[in-house]
Amino acid sequence: MITGKNLIGNQHSARGNTVFTTFDPQLNEENEWKFVEASEEEIDAAVELAMEAFSEFSTASGSVKAAFLREIALQIEGLGDELIAVYCKESGLTEGRAKGERGRTCFQLRSFADLVEEGSWVNATIDTALPDRDPIPKPDIRKMAIPIGPIVVFGASNFPLAYSTAGGDTASALAAGCPVIVKSHPMHAATSELVAFAVRKAAKQTGMPEGVFSHLNSSGIEVGQALVKHPGIKGVGFTGSRIGGRALFDIAAQRREPIPVFAEMGSINPVVLLPEALEKNATTWARKYAASITLGTGQFCTNPGLLLAIKSEELKEFMNVLSEVLEATSPGCMLHPRIHEKYTSLKSEMIAGKEVETIADLRDRVAPNYAQQSAVTVSGNVFLSHPKLHQEVFGPFSMVVVCDNAAELERVISSLEGQLTGTLIAEKDEIKRYPNILQNLKNKVGRLIFNGVPTGVEVCPSMQHGGPYPASTDSRFGAVGIHAIQRWVRPMSYQNWPDAMLPEALKNANPLGISRLVNGKLTSEPL
Amino acid sequence: MITGKNLIGNQHSARGNTVFTTFDPQLNEENEWKFVEASEEEIDAAVELAMEAFSEFSTASGSVKAAFLREIALQIEGLGDELIAVYCKESGLTEGRAKGERGRTCFQLRSFADLVEEGSWVNATIDTALPDRDPIPKPDIRKMAIPIGPIVVFGASNFPLAYSTAGGDTASALAAGCPVIVKSHPMHAATSELVAFAVRKAAKQTGMPEGVFSHLNSSGIEVGQALVKHPGIKGVGFTGSRIGGRALFDIAAQRREPIPVFAEMGSINPVVLLPEALEKNATTWARKYAASITLGTGQFCTNPGLLLAIKSEELKEFMNVLSEVLEATSPGCMLHPRIHEKYTSLKSEMIAGKEVETIADLRDRVAPNYAQQSAVTVSGNVFLSHPKLHQEVFGPFSMVVVCDNAAELERVISSLEGQLTGTLIAEKDEIKRYPNILQNLKNKVGRLIFNGVPTGVEVCPSMQHGGPYPASTDSRFGAVGIHAIQRWVRPMSYQNWPDAMLPEALKNANPLGISRLVNGKLTSEPL
Repeated sequence: MITGKNLIGNQHSARGNTVFTTFDPQLNEENEWKFVEASEEEIDAAVELAMEAFSEFSTASGSVKAAFLREIALQIEGLGDELIAVYCKESGLTEGRAKGERGRTCFQLRSFADLVEEGSWVNATIDTALPDRDPIPKPDIRKMAIPIGPIVVFGASNFPLAYSTAGGDTASALAAGCPVIVKSHPMHAATSELVAFAVRKAAKQTGMPEGVFSHLNSSGIEVGQALVKHPGIKGVGFTGSRIGGRALFDIAAQRREPIPVFAEMGSINPVVLLPEALEKNATTWARKYAASITLGTGQFCTNPGLLLAIKSEELKEFMNVLSEVLEATSPGCMLHPRIHEKYTSLKSEMIAGKEVETIADLRDRVAPNYAQQSAVTVSGNVFLSHPKLHQEVFGPFSMVVVCDNAAELERVISSLEGQLTGTLIAEKDEIKRYPNILQNLKNKVGRLIFNGVPTGVEVCPSMQHGGPYPASTDSRFGAVGIHAIQRWVRPMSYQNWPDAMLPEALKNANPLGISRLVNGKLTSEPL
Repeated sequence: MITGKNLIGNQHSARGNTVFTTFDPQLNEENEWKFVEASEEEIDAAVELAMEAFSEFSTASGSVKAAFLREIALQIEGLGDELIAVYCKESGLTEGRAKGERGRTCFQLRSFADLVEEGSWVNATIDTALPDRDPIPKPDIRKMAIPIGPIVVFGASNFPLAYSTAGGDTASALAAGCPVIVKSHPMHAATSELVAFAVRKAAKQTGMPEGVFSHLNSSGIEVGQALVKHPGIKGVGFTGSRIGGRALFDIAAQRREPIPVFAEMGSINPVVLLPEALEKNATTWARKYAASITLGTGQFCTNPGLLLAIKSEELKEFMNVLSEVLEATSPGCMLHPRIHEKYTSLKSEMIAGKEVETIADLRDRVAPNYAQQSAVTVSGNVFLSHPKLHQEVFGPFSMVVVCDNAAELERVISSLEGQLTGTLIAEKDEIKRYPNILQNLKNKVGRLIFNGVPTGVEVCPSMQHGGPYPASTDSRFGAVGIHAIQRWVRPMSYQNWPDAMLPEALKNANPLGISRLVNGKLTSEPL
């Protein structure tokens, strides 16, 4: 049963005055549940509780945190079909996608459980004393990562499970030892509540301090902004729009004590199609890209919104097939009427642009909230002189930029903003003839793909999901995979500390058996 | 010979109109050299050149960068006595300190050379493909750290060598593969020029691209601000005042593309003296702290400006000895008349505070620019209610806060801002009786010292020099030791990339023989 209440530690609370509902885009009607937005007092209470919890939770052992994370995964799985049904009713996504995302969410939780249970992630670094060193003795110094404090996680509209309530940001922050307050996404508040209750149950069953997790409802931007301003909050995880992410970044930077905001704000994911590859496989790539552009109704951050190539007959062939397959693809439902509306208006704006030619635009009548996929083409010259053409159209849309030659293609790549991904479609020997294209693309992106599509973000240690601004607000970190934990920790050194008083990770005996850098050598041996 | 000109790549340039001099605080007179502040055109030229250099330098091999860094160290050593003499004339510091700092600077350069020559610092992470995975194949993904782009380094007033022109920030940025533009500190522009010429010579001799290093003079804040605003600049290293660091942080955060600013802004470095330790060793600790407070005329970022204890007879004894030794210590010269003036006025403001009692204040006549060391005491209650007493007095000054009991001591620690260091003076068994004190202190600091003094920052991998704001603007990184390189890099993933086109660090054969995380296991074996 959905209560519509906020969850502040163990307390269900609904003291606010603003009530809102979520929307079923497939049925094109409001869902039945009513949610009460968190009040200022409730926000303060959640942060206070998180601050209290921090002193205990920040020093919880890896195995304690692992048990908590694994129990969250079990509890989420225990929600069974209700979670899947509610997810679909709030997102318009398919049952298959819901189950896939649930699997990914639980996989992430268990990956972080494994990581902290093993323990080497704290980067323990030890330099032992040299009491007789001349001219001054060298002290014993030992460093490890410790958590920074309570974190706010914003639910993402396009990933109701894997990048929301118990998604990657929450899992990595909890794994680090940081209490988490989730501001649920207003479009899927019920899905979020179900998951929040699962987290709460897991916290109780594994004996976590009450404030380790709270969950607040919001219909607009106020709750999130109040959380980011709160002095008790020490970091922010966000996946969403550029405007939303930048607003939170600015608030955080203007605090008396600035805090890190990890905002992943999407990207148009340029794809460079080199001539020989098009000569050999124009049709194959056109089919693959039509599928990638429409995957999940184009609502992935890694959707390929920009296809770059040099003019040729084969490029024309590519565009013909792309157009054909795009128009033959069944249209998909979007997450919410507001997202659908924004897609439609931005797409129309692009299509109406001077010197922009439409190459595909589904004209069939579609059900409400279903997107009509589309593709357009412009010359390199026009693209270079119109910054508006560089913006993201969230949905099943892509733009083919036709350059006169390799030099113009280089300039187009140089003109781009930071991106999550960049893709090169090329024959193997062909790459070497375009070194500047590769170099320019590399400087813009967090992930460089060869002969593939950018959609499909594998969750593994080697994945970088993030990139130069505006793909994310801090390109030095990523949101996917175990290294995401590094966003929520800071190194701390212990100097001349008695062995018995050191954290386990730094003790002489190495009781955790972790890998440590000891006097410059990586080892898991005791000292 | 000091030219007073800017160094833009290989060009000596002096097109600006503002001319300034440096000052010899020992002789209390201006030095003879004239420096020409960089003009807007010169700033642009330096950044353009750095951007050009980036494409080559960013992919330079570890051994190429190591040769460059080692040659810088050799060239600095080759400057011989001239460097030492100029250093002393611009800082008032002793020849011994100058030589020590030169040694540290060269040690840092060589440490980073060793680090990048060995190569494992790039955190290579490889997950190989599973083409038959169900339901979708797993691609081959490989991640490593790559440099973020041109960096601006601000010279630090209190470390003319080790945290200035070729100091820790520059060495770590060059090691990462980032071109560096140094904005020299106006108080030691000649020292900076000598070192800049040494870097230039080393760049030429080791075949670096011209824009890998430039050096700009400035008398005020304009040149630095223009550099931080420049879209070609991708990161900033700064050591200095809180006002200066925050101003740069704000400029960087407000850019269209925000960039990371690593500003280390000092700290009052609280020291907690527990009762039993004072019972046993009040006199010894008082002597050690009198020496630490006056070391380098109190001009270290880790100077102990705050001593916290519970009232007792032994604390009185501690204060008596501290007072005695402080007043008997020979006064030292400060770096510059402006720094001396600020010390004197802030100290007087502290001494004049209501309910502040002076326990030591050197009254002897001293030479111009020499500091009269001082210590004061206040009650915990007064300290808690007067935020002004929490500010840093840069120089040989400290404040003893006398608390009524352990609970008040805890509150005092909780009231502090972020700090570079925190120190606990205690008997071993005593610590366990004050768990909250230890926990509160830990949350405030980057380095926790047991029974020692905070001055003396060992340069080694386990050192954390940084801390929660305002000690630094990003507590997740540090400015000292090899891990400082992580400030200037970002992870990038290669997906499905042909082996021959991968960077050496990620190739199957592991030609660099580095340690890599391959399918979750750390190994230096080939694939």
